[in-house]
Amino acid sequence: MKKLLIIPFALLLFWTAHPQKVNEEDSIMLRKIYDEALVNGKSYEWLRHITKNIGHRLSGSVGAERAVEYTKQELDQLNLDKVWLQSVMVPKWVRGIKEYAYIETSPGNTTVVNIRALGGSTSTPQGGLKAGIIEVQGIEGLKKLNRSDVEGKIVFFNKAMDPRFIETFGDYGNTVSQRSSGAYEASKLGAVGVIVRSVTLKEHETPHSGGMSYRDLPLDQYIPAAAISTTHANVLSSMLKLQPDLQFYFNQTSKMMPDVESHNVIGEIKGSVHPERIIVVGAHLDSWDLGEGAHDDGAGVVQSMEVMRMLKDLNYKPKHTIRVVLFMNEENGTRGARKYAEEADKNTEPHIFGIESDAGGFSPRGFSFACSDEELAYLKQWQPLFEPYLANLFVKGFSGVDIRPLEKENNIMTGLKVDSQRYFDIHHAETDVLELVSRRELELGAAAMASIIYLVDKYGTVNYPVE
Amino acid sequence: MKKLLIIPFALLLFWTAHPQKVNEEDSIMLRKIYDEALVNGKSYEWLRHITKNIGHRLSGSVGAERAVEYTKQELDQLNLDKVWLQSVMVPKWVRGIKEYAYIETSPGNTTVVNIRALGGSTSTPQGGLKAGIIEVQGIEGLKKLNRSDVEGKIVFFNKAMDPRFIETFGDYGNTVSQRSSGAYEASKLGAVGVIVRSVTLKEHETPHSGGMSYRDLPLDQYIPAAAISTTHANVLSSMLKLQPDLQFYFNQTSKMMPDVESHNVIGEIKGSVHPERIIVVGAHLDSWDLGEGAHDDGAGVVQSMEVMRMLKDLNYKPKHTIRVVLFMNEENGTRGARKYAEEADKNTEPHIFGIESDAGGFSPRGFSFACSDEELAYLKQWQPLFEPYLANLFVKGFSGVDIRPLEKENNIMTGLKVDSQRYFDIHHAETDVLELVSRRELELGAAAMASIIYLVDKYGTVNYPVE
Repeated sequence: MKKLLIIPFALLLFWTAHPQKVNEEDSIMLRKIYDEALVNGKSYEWLRHITKNIGHRLSGSVGAERAVEYTKQELDQLNLDKVWLQSVMVPKWVRGIKEYAYIETSPGNTTVVNIRALGGSTSTPQGGLKAGIIEVQGIEGLKKLNRSDVEGKIVFFNKAMDPRFIETFGDYGNTVSQRSSGAYEASKLGAVGVIVRSVTLKEHETPHSGGMSYRDLPLDQYIPAAAISTTHANVLSSMLKLQPDLQFYFNQTSKMMPDVESHNVIGEIKGSVHPERIIVVGAHLDSWDLGEGAHDDGAGVVQSMEVMRMLKDLNYKPKHTIRVVLFMNEENGTRGARKYAEEADKNTEPHIFGIESDAGGFSPRGFSFACSDEELAYLKQWQPLFEPYLANLFVKGFSGVDIRPLEKENNIMTGLKVDSQRYFDIHHAETDVLELVSRRELELGAAAMASIIYLVDKYGTVNYPVE
Repeated sequence: MKKLLIIPFALLLFWTAHPQKVNEEDSIMLRKIYDEALVNGKSYEWLRHITKNIGHRLSGSVGAERAVEYTKQELDQLNLDKVWLQSVMVPKWVRGIKEYAYIETSPGNTTVVNIRALGGSTSTPQGGLKAGIIEVQGIEGLKKLNRSDVEGKIVFFNKAMDPRFIETFGDYGNTVSQRSSGAYEASKLGAVGVIVRSVTLKEHETPHSGGMSYRDLPLDQYIPAAAISTTHANVLSSMLKLQPDLQFYFNQTSKMMPDVESHNVIGEIKGSVHPERIIVVGAHLDSWDLGEGAHDDGAGVVQSMEVMRMLKDLNYKPKHTIRVVLFMNEENGTRGARKYAEEADKNTEPHIFGIESDAGGFSPRGFSFACSDEELAYLKQWQPLFEPYLANLFVKGFSGVDIRPLEKENNIMTGLKVDSQRYFDIHHAETDVLELVSRRELELGAAAMASIIYLVDKYGTVNYPVE
């Protein structure tokens, strides 16, 4: 009996939700896009160059400049209508010599542990810093302590990511605060340094870096901050239980330099009906200075370029202007994103839709739209088109760090939603290398991005219908 | 206007499809299962032992026997109601010395290529086999040739997997026939050997092995068969275009030995309401003799064991008997599966539901049910429970090689459906190692399996309702 009821309602729902908008032409076009990505895809070869011939690309580094040059040159070869560089001043932080750290239980009795300076951190005093160390669980743990507990010590932030979140990003916000604000908060209580458990769900000996800030602290209250691998965080925690007065030593020579000029890399295909309206696809060109920035965000960069290549090679003539933006400085400043958004405002260019890929080159599962309920309902008419590609999760949510500044009430900024299980294995670490990127997963992501762009371009959005 | 219509119908659909069966208790139980897998999971540590301390486990090998012993011993520690071994005679094939092959364009002018003997293949003549080689695209390509084209030559089957299938298994059937039947078909036309393009979508230098059969050929018509890496298949194909009369040499000492005794490893928790009805969870304990059999099918083995551990540790008292079966000899004979099904029949044990994990320890996406439309509609009432875990794809389809012999009209055999993009990177190859298994992906698979088993156990199926 149950079954007899289900079928007609399901059909009714289908027809109600899909008036005339999704047709066979769209289904055929998506198939063409996916075939193009999987058979003739260029994304993986681009990524090979970016990761193996260029390597990591921290803002202000030679790697970042070489990546600007290379991606500009590759976009130039796609016969887009226009390719250009947008100048932006970026912070320049240098890591210095390889960091070194150990736990000392008695003079000469030491256990070496793996640390990497956090991005933005100052150096230790020359010769390194040795002090007592006190473990806390996150910023909230520190705030339970008094100045007398902390003064003259290193604070060891050891809050672990919670493995119970099915989407691993779910707990990033909860644990990353000790990395980004730990030094600031600890310094205010008189701490001399900060060691932070790597923000990862993997237990391994690789430290994961990432940004931190001293906010409004005076320069003389800057204290050095470093990430420790999760394995060694566990070792340190165990040893502290046995011997709370042990000493911790670390040495790093990282420092901030004056800002330098860098660039966003931009290319576009002019629209035939609404050339003034922009659909943007993007990712960030910079990376941390560990590993190769393969997933974060080399993958997003080459997927965004691949969207443009496919539209050209499939001879698609867009109604709107479709623009790729490779943003500089997402990791430690988002200067490129802010510069791009400022210029877009200044030039009164309506950005009707945007999509960013910055969650790694993993199997795409759908899209996370920063939009109204009305826009989501409209977008969902296209959901069945993505079912054959297993990328039909359409939810409201976060778009992306670089396109968020473009969000307006009447537009839709979107994050490519990918399988998140392996992301924190490689995030900001030496393990973020090409070998851990699956060519097919990368290509499927590019195809999903191109497909949603095609649909938005063809039909417009609720607030920007195609005239 | 459209939106106003969608919502009431969607709600109606929801309530129609979910009468009273799915309740908050179930939602809480699934959350408990997932938390248990992600926080206290044992699957990865078991897999570490199986891959690193034991290694590959071809039927009849010492590895296979050690795996029987180890998994029996681990199941013994779970306090199940019964753990036992089921004896089964299995084929024993040995690879012999490392294979060696080259392309010879003129005497002394050789290009070494990577090959591995196909499982079941005979050896080359002592000292190796050198002959002309002719390229064909699959069995259908061979069938276009005459005996005079093939006689005295090596046949090079070079049909590639089609990358356009979104689920990579989609093209396995089309390409694997040249591996399994190539030697049989080529021998009938007088060929002296067979070289087969590895069944993988990855272009790399690693050959992928797998089974083959001579069927009813007389012994003296057995010809040696080996897989060549995709990279070297491309090299060979290019060189053949330039020089069709080049020579190919290969040497392998593989051979079949007499059958030996081995075992399925079985454990169960007795049901409280229908102890005679069996819900089975399983995977295969054997692997090919390259790599570590980490994804294929170490992952499935430890996930199946983990289902039992979680049910026990969560103190769940099943209504039906829940049985784990670790099948021997899936890869080259399925003797274990057939033996188990025969015994189940002999003992008239109704197997009301089964689930197998044999598609790699990748992110679970849902289930592939071998069942009737009516059963599928019934199962789909549980689909919303799996939405928070992104494992809510419920489709009719293939169950698994080992549980397929248990299929009846009135029961449901099920395959755990996982993301398939990386599977053929590692399938039957040296690349199938623990390092390429994500702990979280593995654990999520075990949780999905335990969750569907919990629901079937609690509510029964259409044909076997709980009294």
